[in-house]
Amino acid sequence: MTRLQATYDIESPVGIQRAAEVMAGEQSTGTFSRLASETDALRDKSAARIEAVTITGSADHPALPCRLSGVTYEQGRVTISWPMDNFGPSLTNILATIAGNLFELAELSAIRLVGLDVPEALAQACPGPQYGISGTRALMGVDSGPMIGTIVKPSVGLSASQTAALVSDLAAAGIDFVKDDELQGNGPACPFEDRTRQVMQAIDTAAQKDGRKVMYAFNITDEIDAMRRNLDLLDSLGATCAMVSLHSIGLAGLRAVRDHSPLPIHAHRNGWGLLSRSPHIGIAFPVMQKMWRLAGADHLHVNGLANKFTETDAVVTEAARAVQAPLNDTVPHRALPVFSSGQTAWQVGPTMELLGNDDFLFCAGGGIMSHPDGPAAGITSLRQAAAAQKEGVRVEEYAKEHPELATALVTFKSAVTRS
Amino acid sequence: MTRLQATYDIESPVGIQRAAEVMAGEQSTGTFSRLASETDALRDKSAARIEAVTITGSADHPALPCRLSGVTYEQGRVTISWPMDNFGPSLTNILATIAGNLFELAELSAIRLVGLDVPEALAQACPGPQYGISGTRALMGVDSGPMIGTIVKPSVGLSASQTAALVSDLAAAGIDFVKDDELQGNGPACPFEDRTRQVMQAIDTAAQKDGRKVMYAFNITDEIDAMRRNLDLLDSLGATCAMVSLHSIGLAGLRAVRDHSPLPIHAHRNGWGLLSRSPHIGIAFPVMQKMWRLAGADHLHVNGLANKFTETDAVVTEAARAVQAPLNDTVPHRALPVFSSGQTAWQVGPTMELLGNDDFLFCAGGGIMSHPDGPAAGITSLRQAAAAQKEGVRVEEYAKEHPELATALVTFKSAVTRS
Repeated sequence: MTRLQATYDIESPVGIQRAAEVMAGEQSTGTFSRLASETDALRDKSAARIEAVTITGSADHPALPCRLSGVTYEQGRVTISWPMDNFGPSLTNILATIAGNLFELAELSAIRLVGLDVPEALAQACPGPQYGISGTRALMGVDSGPMIGTIVKPSVGLSASQTAALVSDLAAAGIDFVKDDELQGNGPACPFEDRTRQVMQAIDTAAQKDGRKVMYAFNITDEIDAMRRNLDLLDSLGATCAMVSLHSIGLAGLRAVRDHSPLPIHAHRNGWGLLSRSPHIGIAFPVMQKMWRLAGADHLHVNGLANKFTETDAVVTEAARAVQAPLNDTVPHRALPVFSSGQTAWQVGPTMELLGNDDFLFCAGGGIMSHPDGPAAGITSLRQAAAAQKEGVRVEEYAKEHPELATALVTFKSAVTRS
Repeated sequence: MTRLQATYDIESPVGIQRAAEVMAGEQSTGTFSRLASETDALRDKSAARIEAVTITGSADHPALPCRLSGVTYEQGRVTISWPMDNFGPSLTNILATIAGNLFELAELSAIRLVGLDVPEALAQACPGPQYGISGTRALMGVDSGPMIGTIVKPSVGLSASQTAALVSDLAAAGIDFVKDDELQGNGPACPFEDRTRQVMQAIDTAAQKDGRKVMYAFNITDEIDAMRRNLDLLDSLGATCAMVSLHSIGLAGLRAVRDHSPLPIHAHRNGWGLLSRSPHIGIAFPVMQKMWRLAGADHLHVNGLANKFTETDAVVTEAARAVQAPLNDTVPHRALPVFSSGQTAWQVGPTMELLGNDDFLFCAGGGIMSHPDGPAAGITSLRQAAAAQKEGVRVEEYAKEHPELATALVTFKSAVTRS
């Protein structure tokens, strides 16, 4: 029987082995006192199974507040598997199983979901990204090199026409991609339809001039039917990307968008800190991004090197590589990693290096808009940084004959070195 | 202009006042370097505003890993407001604003969203619970006293016919409410339609006998259109409740269910530990339940006193009271608190006491099924405990003349005292 397998880093006042048994029981056939109906046959068919238990250490105090107390708090890693027959290929119900009540168990003083093995049957039953990396490159008209993008700033406050004017400038400056901020949805100050129509007009006008259509990720986040209407509008206007706030629409919302969308889905993970920032509770990004890819995300945010938030470069690196890695041999469902947050010419080369390729979207806000010589110079500085990396030349060296890059390196040095 | 207001408990390496400024900037008009387009007029119209700042203490070390370091880490509470014009009455986009990137800011070493003031216009624009407390009582046929419910156990493993047989027994035993476990969705081992048809047949047969229809919360959690089909099936069969896993379907999914559902929505918060268990990051339940009520949840889980999980009785009490409290004077949108997790006759009286009323659903699993004299005695013991509380008599005293209660108090003593 096919089984779904998840791995957790845990700490427990009752010992790792006992904690693993409680976890497996709680998330399948167990109750707090065993029932007559919980027969051996039923357990064989439906119970979760402990696949591996490793003890890695112990602590004197619990990492998180915990109803149960222990003499010590043992730390370790456990792998648990479930028969797929318990839930079928339903991502929403799988999430309730692998990431449900577990997080509140009194037998755990820390728990992070750190691994998920997706059976081939599950991967095949899910749509996965519709465009992924190659489809996005084709739509964007960028055959090689990092795709260079930016975010409309200020995040909110611009009217539809002001946004369109900004997009005209960015298109003229040579940008590949622009996105709404996740704070900009469909508020009265800048209604979705109005913004969409005016921005697409700006993009079409620019495309007529230089033959290349800027990809704009319109934030369609809203109620389900409103998102479907938003997608229809985007499609009718020839738009090429739709953005959603994953945390707000849930896995079910993402799948509904995927099933209705003729466009790539730009998946924004705002709120991600809730699931990731504590070392003691949460879900590792390499796990959660698998669920989002299965449900259909084409582009996934992974923060950026030396970002203005709190994730370390090691976490960002692991996240970006995970997004590009095939889910399994026959159903890769690969997606496009999106770098953002305080990104400038400084981080382009290191980003290429960590991935070993340039199949990523590099979004710089201030790194483009605040270039002293204007957005075009900002964009050029990023492309120059990529060229330097490709040629194996240090950016500081390359900058000697590339003034836009030289200016960027000086201007944005403090933004990078503060981290 | 109407504003939405949220309150956060934070800790910061740069001081509370500065941190509040960064939060307000990040979640509205700010960028990491101020742009020319960020005019004073734009800020007046769209910027988030700091409404209050209180410093409560400081620490030597950051509570959470943090890219920025400080000499001390100041602790305090900040209230921030946003113009409703930034997002309109869109819950999904409001969530991205009040609970988005904030949680990853390097200027914060701890952040919990602890308060939310819902403007009347927002409450009016949202559907809220369709049934709430009184509608649920009417459908269930329970005019007064706590509503007594249980959860199908084992959580998974029973076939549709085994589940229906269990429901027959429970109906005969006098139960008011039964629910699917959140692990039971639509897996091949117990398909939704099959389970629904057989369970409803059992319920209808029982209703013909004693004139009262047990409310059963069928777990409809799935993709959006599948949930709508599930609702249609439930309605066609005369079912009276639909359950969803909130974390899996998101606010957009909940609202889609609300808009399509002729039945009360039983909202299960599995995965809640992710948002609540760390003292240093998360969302307080009194905030999140407002969002869920606005989107249409009728029943909301609040754990239970002396539960088998980790929330303290104080947290459970605050949660349950919050669910019953009106959102504001003109738009109450009150919902029904659902107690569960290791609940027995011991906790009925204290639960009535903490709420000052009996408008709640009390779900006991083992507390009913593991009663030595069977489920009917288990249910009776809970009703007797409620009667004792109503009459102002201690349960131990009341048990002297009520054998089911007496047996329950002995049988389940260890389950309560372990906490």
